[in-house]
Amino acid sequence: MKFLDFFRSSSKRNSSSVAKERLQIIVAHERRRASSPDFLPRMQQDILAVVRKYIPIGEDQIKLSVDRSGDCEVLELNIALSETTGK
Amino acid sequence: MKFLDFFRSSSKRNSSSVAKERLQIIVAHERRRASSPDFLPRMQQDILAVVRKYIPIGEDQIKLSVDRSGDCEVLELNIALSETTGK
Repeated sequence: MKFLDFFRSSSKRNSSSVAKERLQIIVAHERRRASSPDFLPRMQQDILAVVRKYIPIGEDQIKLSVDRSGDCEVLELNIALSETTGK
Repeated sequence: MKFLDFFRSSSKRNSSSVAKERLQIIVAHERRRASSPDFLPRMQQDILAVVRKYIPIGEDQIKLSVDRSGDCEVLELNIALSETTGK
């Protein structure tokens, strides 16, 4: 399955989000050694700053989740864009 | 399905990548109107610059794909981290 299919299927799960404009940013890191530094939280803040260069977004528009399993760590940013943003 | 499951299942598809350290960044944009500006290519370059602040990566380590379907656009960055990077 391609990510596009995954993205579209996850959109269908929540019918209220179908008509909304949204931006999703996912940063996934698979580490070989647990000793590798965990730079994802800092990187995520920097990426959010990049997004804000293009779209004015408030804290209440962002849903952030972190998922860990074994040597995988996934940061997921879901941003609901309002009618006045992203133009 | 959570993204972590998707990420792990996509890793299994390519057995050669299982033992490697990797970073995947996905930026997905669902637009309501085709008239919305397409800022993803520029944003992707900025995000890549952010990643390079944390990990030295060469152009040959990056696989970039763009996927479009209807009002959805997905940029996918797959970065294979070598033994000397990400430490």
